[in-house]
Amino acid sequence: MPDERPDAVLMAHGGGGRMAQRLLDEIFLPAFNNPLLAARLDGAVGELGGTRLAFTADSYVVRPLFFPGGDIGTLAVNGTVNDLAMCGARPAWMSAAFILEEGFPFADLKRVAESMRRAAAAAGVRIVTGDTKVVDAGKGDGVYLATSGVGEVVARAPMGPAEVREGDAILLSGDVGRHGMAIMSAREGFAFETTLESDCAPLVAPVMELLDAGVAVRALRDLTRGGLATALVELSEGAKREFAVEETAVPVIAPVRAACEMLGLDPLYVANEGRFTALVAEADAERALAILRRHDASRSACRIGRVNGGATRGRVTARGAIGARRILDRLSGEQLPRIC
Amino acid sequence: MPDERPDAVLMAHGGGGRMAQRLLDEIFLPAFNNPLLAARLDGAVGELGGTRLAFTADSYVVRPLFFPGGDIGTLAVNGTVNDLAMCGARPAWMSAAFILEEGFPFADLKRVAESMRRAAAAAGVRIVTGDTKVVDAGKGDGVYLATSGVGEVVARAPMGPAEVREGDAILLSGDVGRHGMAIMSAREGFAFETTLESDCAPLVAPVMELLDAGVAVRALRDLTRGGLATALVELSEGAKREFAVEETAVPVIAPVRAACEMLGLDPLYVANEGRFTALVAEADAERALAILRRHDASRSACRIGRVNGGATRGRVTARGAIGARRILDRLSGEQLPRIC
Repeated sequence: MPDERPDAVLMAHGGGGRMAQRLLDEIFLPAFNNPLLAARLDGAVGELGGTRLAFTADSYVVRPLFFPGGDIGTLAVNGTVNDLAMCGARPAWMSAAFILEEGFPFADLKRVAESMRRAAAAAGVRIVTGDTKVVDAGKGDGVYLATSGVGEVVARAPMGPAEVREGDAILLSGDVGRHGMAIMSAREGFAFETTLESDCAPLVAPVMELLDAGVAVRALRDLTRGGLATALVELSEGAKREFAVEETAVPVIAPVRAACEMLGLDPLYVANEGRFTALVAEADAERALAILRRHDASRSACRIGRVNGGATRGRVTARGAIGARRILDRLSGEQLPRIC
Repeated sequence: MPDERPDAVLMAHGGGGRMAQRLLDEIFLPAFNNPLLAARLDGAVGELGGTRLAFTADSYVVRPLFFPGGDIGTLAVNGTVNDLAMCGARPAWMSAAFILEEGFPFADLKRVAESMRRAAAAAGVRIVTGDTKVVDAGKGDGVYLATSGVGEVVARAPMGPAEVREGDAILLSGDVGRHGMAIMSAREGFAFETTLESDCAPLVAPVMELLDAGVAVRALRDLTRGGLATALVELSEGAKREFAVEETAVPVIAPVRAACEMLGLDPLYVANEGRFTALVAEADAERALAILRRHDASRSACRIGRVNGGATRGRVTARGAIGARRILDRLSGEQLPRIC
């Protein structure tokens, strides 16, 4: 069991789970205290000069830089546009700041830039500003990438955990665990029967169609570090309600399940980079699923649970194959370091 | 002389001079091609939902993390708000993404966060979103910081090199070279007669007052990597005019001059983090100076030259103490690596 009260940074502080949360609670929130940050959404939403904007930021330290289904550049662009989409915003502009290690080959840098160009074009976002710094050989890892994004909020109703109501349907955009396991297999050279590809993809199109169609979307969350389970726990705590999930309804493709079993990992906690959960009004659930299934990134969307009443601090229960219910907690330590 | 056509990243590519320019020209501009990026301002300026916005991004890899007059946190906040101010925008929101090295002491992280809090409060900006990643011990340098900022453009007239006209006055907000030499002395343990402090400061207040007062500001540029000389060369090339600078009018405090002489550096090329140049209509020059001198960050503002006609590709000439004119070029290699 990892030390939960260290006096220095551990790898687990980057894992998006309980220790990352503590870093936010104990250092960043007190220092940068303001309501937009305290809302703990995938980005900040606010008004500037009469326009409702979403603003998000992320950094990327994935290892290896190139992996089946993408690279650090694809990841950075999709991560940014997805965070904006989760805020109900249409991505407009993004920035890219490169921290390059001395000796990083130009050929690799060009490959990353080309991936970013393609991903940005696919998501309809423009990379409009940026920065480059160089650190000494050995003080970096090829390239670290920090991106941020700005978009106009198109959602007409407010969205977020506080909007979640009893009876809402919990939808999932597709099978989980591909990204984390693709990175692991690329990093450790595991030979699975098939090459596992990351699910890394832009989620802008399905989200925009949900909003344009007037579906009563209460909250959206993409399933990155900490996986589906951590995202649901955070949402349920924000909503102060119990989420009842049917674990058997969560799609996991066979090679991901096999790899997780081999490594002793729970696919519900493995990171994804092109999956999201949508909490929608029950009355709109079937219509929402039909919309999601029209898009490549959410072709296998499904319903995985419902929101119950009660549970003032929030809680997620998952019913497994044998019918027993367990309570899901957020990721505690760090399963897979540096997967994004 | 450094190799100007390498096939891998060199420290000099992070220096903000000619090699950094080449990276932008050969890799990033072709990939991310769009007019906002191609404008090569300190940030992107555009309209979103009817609001004119500026959007900027930077990353910080300064060594050491703490130095006389500031730290990586002060630098990141002031760098971001200053880039927005240079776009004629009032800073509203910023993001902060931390790339932490495993083992980085929490005490240091808290100190950086506290510096950011203070700097953000002083500049009137809110840190509303962010991210934390952790890299393995040895793969970072304590903390790298990437920030971005959003603000509403308050300048009523367009600003930028293309707006510069013959006869405009070239103003400088204060003495140059402090930041670079403060970093050098902290890093190398040079003992100068006095402790050199970085000039790191927010430039928002003086810039906002210039704009509010209706001064005809043609272009603004803060003097970071590459120093005053590189900023003027870039502006003159954008303006396609000759800038005639009186080198004797550029203030350099005695300890900076002494340190530069000892190290064989030209103070015109040393980085600053709280200085800027303003190109303003000659008719408004004295009024602009009076405004600048009312603010701490620009107390010793002065006039250093004027814009001539001619010179279709732009050019900066500097007349020194003995009256001879030399042509200034942008910084070529890297004088002082990782000063921001």
